[in-house]
Amino acid sequence: MDNTKKVFREIKADAMLTSSSDLRRYLTGFPSSFGFVYTDFQESIFFTDPRYAEGARNALKNEFISVEIAKSEESVLEYIKSKKVKRLAVPMERLTVPEAQLLKKFRFKLADSMPAFTEAMAVKTEEELALIRRACEIAEAAYADFLGYLKEGMTESEAAGYLEFAMRKKGAEDRSFETIVAFGKNTSVPHHSPDETKLKKGMPVLADFGCKSGGYCSDMTRTVLFGKSEDGEFEEVYGEVLAAHRNALEGIREGMHGREADALARDLLKKKGLDKFFTHSLGHGIGINIHEFPRLSASSDDILKNGMVFSVEPGVYFEGKFGIRIEDSVYLKDGVAASFMKTDKKLIVI
Amino acid sequence: MDNTKKVFREIKADAMLTSSSDLRRYLTGFPSSFGFVYTDFQESIFFTDPRYAEGARNALKNEFISVEIAKSEESVLEYIKSKKVKRLAVPMERLTVPEAQLLKKFRFKLADSMPAFTEAMAVKTEEELALIRRACEIAEAAYADFLGYLKEGMTESEAAGYLEFAMRKKGAEDRSFETIVAFGKNTSVPHHSPDETKLKKGMPVLADFGCKSGGYCSDMTRTVLFGKSEDGEFEEVYGEVLAAHRNALEGIREGMHGREADALARDLLKKKGLDKFFTHSLGHGIGINIHEFPRLSASSDDILKNGMVFSVEPGVYFEGKFGIRIEDSVYLKDGVAASFMKTDKKLIVI
Repeated sequence: MDNTKKVFREIKADAMLTSSSDLRRYLTGFPSSFGFVYTDFQESIFFTDPRYAEGARNALKNEFISVEIAKSEESVLEYIKSKKVKRLAVPMERLTVPEAQLLKKFRFKLADSMPAFTEAMAVKTEEELALIRRACEIAEAAYADFLGYLKEGMTESEAAGYLEFAMRKKGAEDRSFETIVAFGKNTSVPHHSPDETKLKKGMPVLADFGCKSGGYCSDMTRTVLFGKSEDGEFEEVYGEVLAAHRNALEGIREGMHGREADALARDLLKKKGLDKFFTHSLGHGIGINIHEFPRLSASSDDILKNGMVFSVEPGVYFEGKFGIRIEDSVYLKDGVAASFMKTDKKLIVI
Repeated sequence: MDNTKKVFREIKADAMLTSSSDLRRYLTGFPSSFGFVYTDFQESIFFTDPRYAEGARNALKNEFISVEIAKSEESVLEYIKSKKVKRLAVPMERLTVPEAQLLKKFRFKLADSMPAFTEAMAVKTEEELALIRRACEIAEAAYADFLGYLKEGMTESEAAGYLEFAMRKKGAEDRSFETIVAFGKNTSVPHHSPDETKLKKGMPVLADFGCKSGGYCSDMTRTVLFGKSEDGEFEEVYGEVLAAHRNALEGIREGMHGREADALARDLLKKKGLDKFFTHSLGHGIGINIHEFPRLSASSDDILKNGMVFSVEPGVYFEGKFGIRIEDSVYLKDGVAASFMKTDKKLIVI
C-alpha cells in the first residue's frame, strides 16, 4: 500500500502537506495524534514528535515513507521552503484561518488536496476491506450479547455502555462513534443520545453502533421489540422498512448515482405513504471516518464504484411514537452490493 | 445563567456568531450537533434545525435566548446582514478557510470572540462546579469497581471498556475522552492506546479516565501495582510522584501563574533527579472540554483565578520500564486548591 503516491499523483502541485489525523492515518497506516506528512516527487516524510517516532519507524520500515522528528509546523514549513517548493497542496476545507496565515507567511501558492483524498479514500483496497469486515464481525458478535443483556428497568445509558464494552471485549480498538440506544418513543429521534429512560415491556429498542479495527469503522443498526407491541402497527411498518432496505441492497449497481441508490428505498416507502417519515438519506461512505464519500442521498450526484464501502440504512420515524431503522455496512464488488453483516433482519421480539 | 451576555460584553463588535458545538453548548446549555448562536445588543437567537428545535424551545423557555429554525449558515448570515451588523465577532481559531470565504462574501468586518470565550469558560459558576463534582463522583465510583474487576490475563482493551461501562452504569452521559488503561511497560507511554496486552502478576496498571455529567467533564488518573514489584524501584518513585502531586495541590494559590503551579511539582522531582522524566505539564483546565484554559505548564503565563477547574497530574516515565501518574480534578476556591476527588492516593497493591 502506498497511499501517499496514490493521492499525490492526482494533485496539481510540487508537493503536499497533510496534518489532519484521519488523512495522516490514511497516508501512513499509523495512528498518531500529532504530525505532518510531506510528499513531493522525490520523497515522503512523516514528521512527528518523539512520542511517536520510534513506533512509527518500526511500523514504516518497509514503506516508501521515512520518519523525522518535528518540533512545530513552522519547522516543517522551513524544510519545505528549503526544497524550493512553490505550489503546495493542502486539504483546504480543513485549514483554519491561523494555519492559512502561517502558510501565507511562507509565500506558498496553495492547491487543494481534499478532492484527491476524498476520491482515493472512497475506493478501498483488499487490506482495507478486511479491516472493515473484522470491525463488522466484532459489532455483530457484541450485538448478539447485547440482546441477551437487555432487561426490564435497564436504562438506555447502561445498555449503550454494555454494547460498547462487549465490542471492546471482542477485540475492538474503540467504538466508531457514540453508540445510540433508544427505548420506546425515543426511537423516533434518529440521533437520540442515550439517557436514563428505562426499558419497559412492549417498547421498541433501536441500537445504532459500530467499532474500529485497525483504524477502520463498522456501522450497524437494528430495531427490535421488547415484548409484543399493542396494535401491530410497529410490525407492519417494520416490514416496509425491511423491504426498502432489501430493495436497496439488491438493486444497487456500480455506476449508479447516490440519488438512484437512495431512490431504491425511498420510492418503495413512497408507495406506502411512508417517504415523508424517511427524514434522512439512505447511506454514507465508511472507512477511517464513520462518514465519508460517497453520499447516498436524494440529491447526491456521487457515482458508486467497485471497492466503495457505505451504509444502507432506511428509517421511518413517527414523532412521539416510534422509529425503525435497519442498517448494514455494505461494499460494492463485481458491480453489485454485498453486505458485511450476517445478523438476521427479520423482526425479533425478545 | 446567561453566558451569551457574559461573553458578548467582552467583545468589541456589533454582534457575535458561534457555530462550534462546545461554545454553542456553553451559550445555550443545550446539547446539539448543528446550529448557530447569534447575539447582539438586543437579542440572542439559537438557530438550529427541526430535529432540535422543539427540545431547545422547552429547555430555553425561561432564558434570554430564543430559538429559530435555520436551513443553512447562509440564511443565518442573511439575517445578520438584514440587521445592519458591520463588525461581527467569530471564534477565529475555529474558522476554516471556506467559512472565512463565506463571511467575506457578506462583507462583515471580523473580530475575534475566542479570547472572551476562553476567559469566560475558565471561571465556573456554582452550577457548573456541581456538574463537574458529579462527573468526578461517578468516575471515582466506577474506578472502585474497576479495581475489583482486574484479573490476570485480562487485556487493556477489556479493562478500559469495563471502566467506561461502569461510568455509564453509574449515570455518566458518556466518557469525557478515550480511556487510557496501560499494563506493565506500556505505562511508560503517557498516552498509550489500550491494546491486547495482557495483565500479569507484578505489573503496574495505569488508568486515566473521566466522564461527562450535564455536558461537563471529569479527569482522573491512578497507578497501582497488580502484585508486588520485583525490586522496589516502583514503590520508591511512586512516593516521589505522590509527594509532587501533594505539594502542588497544597501550594497552589489564586493569582499564581501556570508555571508557578507547575514548578511546585517539577522542582520537587528535580531534587530527586526525576524532572527529566516528567515529560508533560502539571495540568490543564477542565470544563465542557477536557482540555481548556488555563495551562499549568513550565512556560505558562496563564493566571489562576478562583472558580477555575483544572487537573493536577505530575507523572514520571521510564521508557520501556514503567510510568506513574497521579491525577485529580481540582478547583480554586477562597484562594486555595481543593480536590473533587476522595479516592486515596497511597500506593495500592492488588
